Amino acid sequence: MTTKQSTSEFNPAEWVIDHNGKTALAIRIQGDRLFQEASPYQVVEVFETYDRGKMLTIDRMVMCTEADEASYHEMIAHTPMLTHPGVKDVLVIGGGDGGTIRELVRHPGIERITMVEIDEVVVKASKQFLPTISCAFDHPKLNLLIDDGIKFVQNAADASYDLVIIDSSDPVGPSSGLFTQSFYQDVYRCLRPGGVVTIQSESPLFHPQAFVDLNYCLKQVFGFDSVHLYLVFIPMYPMGLWSLTYCSKGGVHPIKNFDYEKATQFTKKHNLNYYNPDVHQAAFVLPNYIQKIVEN
Amino acid sequence: MTTKQSTSEFNPAEWVIDHNGKTALAIRIQGDRLFQEASPYQVVEVFETYDRGKMLTIDRMVMCTEADEASYHEMIAHTPMLTHPGVKDVLVIGGGDGGTIRELVRHPGIERITMVEIDEVVVKASKQFLPTISCAFDHPKLNLLIDDGIKFVQNAADASYDLVIIDSSDPVGPSSGLFTQSFYQDVYRCLRPGGVVTIQSESPLFHPQAFVDLNYCLKQVFGFDSVHLYLVFIPMYPMGLWSLTYCSKGGVHPIKNFDYEKATQFTKKHNLNYYNPDVHQAAFVLPNYIQKIVEN
Repeated sequence: MTTKQSTSEFNPAEWVIDHNGKTALAIRIQGDRLFQEASPYQVVEVFETYDRGKMLTIDRMVMCTEADEASYHEMIAHTPMLTHPGVKDVLVIGGGDGGTIRELVRHPGIERITMVEIDEVVVKASKQFLPTISCAFDHPKLNLLIDDGIKFVQNAADASYDLVIIDSSDPVGPSSGLFTQSFYQDVYRCLRPGGVVTIQSESPLFHPQAFVDLNYCLKQVFGFDSVHLYLVFIPMYPMGLWSLTYCSKGGVHPIKNFDYEKATQFTKKHNLNYYNPDVHQAAFVLPNYIQKIVEN
Repeated sequence: MTTKQSTSEFNPAEWVIDHNGKTALAIRIQGDRLFQEASPYQVVEVFETYDRGKMLTIDRMVMCTEADEASYHEMIAHTPMLTHPGVKDVLVIGGGDGGTIRELVRHPGIERITMVEIDEVVVKASKQFLPTISCAFDHPKLNLLIDDGIKFVQNAADASYDLVIIDSSDPVGPSSGLFTQSFYQDVYRCLRPGGVVTIQSESPLFHPQAFVDLNYCLKQVFGFDSVHLYLVFIPMYPMGLWSLTYCSKGGVHPIKNFDYEKATQFTKKHNLNYYNPDVHQAAFVLPNYIQKIVEN
C-alpha cells in the first residue's frame, strides 16, 4: 500500500524540481546537498535521494540517479554496439558522469574511446560521489579530453570513428550547439563508412520543439532512411518517456543488422539492468502519435 | 529550445503535485479549478493544465489528462480485444471517466458492457468537463451501474463475462479492495472459460510494493503461466512507466493468440493515438530489472 500525501504536504525546499514551466519531475532529497560547484558553464550538484540513490544535477536538471541511470546508458551504448559488427574507434561527446564509457568498455572489440566532456566539474563530482557510474575513467582504452565537443569534431579527421555517441544534456547552456546541423555535418564527416551515431534526442513531450527540430536536422544530414528513433523508459527524466536516435552512415540498420544471438550472450554475461535483445527490438516500435510527430 | 526554470521559480500553489513522499509528478494548472466535489469516497477535481489539456484528479492523484489518456485506455481495452476471438460480454470495474468504454464500443462484436463505478461524481465530472473521454456513456450497449465493484463481482453469476477490465485508481481509499486475492477469485469465477481480464497494475517504481503484491496475487489466482505483465508510457502518471496486466482463464495468450492482421486494420480504421499491432507486441517485452522483480 502506498501512502498518499496531499499537495499541502509538499515542501519545495526538500525537493529537486526539474520542470519546463508546464510539467515537472520532482525528486525528494535527504539532508544537505553532497556537492555543489559552479563551473564556468553551469552549476553541478549531487544530492542523496530517498529511493533513487544519489543524484547528479546540472542547473537543477536531473542528469542521472544511481537507481535509474542504467536504462539510459545501456540503451545508448549497446544498441549501436550490437548492430555494428566491428567497432574499434569510439568518440563520446559529453557523458561526463562516466556511465556511457562504463558500458562501452564491456565490449572487448573496442580499441580506443575518445571522450570529450566540456566540464571537468561533472567528471570530478561523478568520480567522487557516483563510483558505480564513474568506474571506467581509468580504463586504459579511454582518452578523456576536457574540451569543447563542437570544436573537437570540427577538427577531427575525416572517417576516423566507427561509433559516435552524443551523450549531452538538454539544449540550454553549453549543450545547445550539439543540436545544430553544422555539428552533425561534422559528426557525419568524421564517421567511417558504415559508422553509427547514437544521440540523446530529448522527449517528444517535455521538449517537443527540440525533439522535432533535432529529428528534422538528423534527417537532413544522414538521410531519411538512416535515422531511427527509439524510446526508453527513463524515470529520472520528466514524464519518463525519452528518446534516443540511431543514425548510420551507409545504412547499417538497428533491426536488420542486429545480432540477436550475440546480444543474448552479452546480456547474460554482463547481468544488465535494462537492455536485452527483445528490449533492443521493442524500443524501435513507436506509438502512433510519436510516428506522426516525426513524419511531419 | 526549452527555457529552463529553477526550483526557486516553482510556486506549489500553481501545480497539482502527485507524489509518494519520494518522487512526484507535478502538472501546472491554469486559473481556478473547473470542478471540485467531495463524494462519500474522495475529492474529485478537474483542472485546466498548460499543455496536457483538462485533467481529472481524485484526492489530488492524477487520473487522466486529455493529452495523455489515450495511451492508457487504448492499451487496457484493445490488447485483450485483439487476442480473444469472440468477446460478447464485458464487465468494467471503475473507469468512471469513460475512456475505457469509449475504446470498447469501437469493437462491433461486443454485445453488452456492464460498467460498475462506485463514485457517480467521477462520472458527472467527466461528462461535464471531459467530453472527448466520456463520449460513450449513452451507448446502447452500455449498462452503467453506480455500485461497489467488489460486491458486484461477489454476486455475479459464474462464467458470465468474456472480458473483465479492472480500471481502478491506486490502492488507497475505495480502490484498496480491488487489490486483494478474494476480489480476483470472484473475477476468475465470473469469467467464461477462455476469458481474459486486464488490470491497471500500478508502477513498479512509484508503487513498488503494490505492484509486487498484485502480481503475486494474480499468479495465485490465474496461475503463473496465465499472468502477463505489459508496460505503457503514461506520462500523466508519476515516473511515466506504468504497468497493465493481462490474465487469462484457460490460457488465451496475448502474443500467441494475437491477430496481427485484424489489429492492423483496426488501428487504421480508428486512427488510434497510441496502440498499433507492433506496440501491442512490444509492450510485453520487459527490461531485465522488471523481469527480476516479478520473478521473485
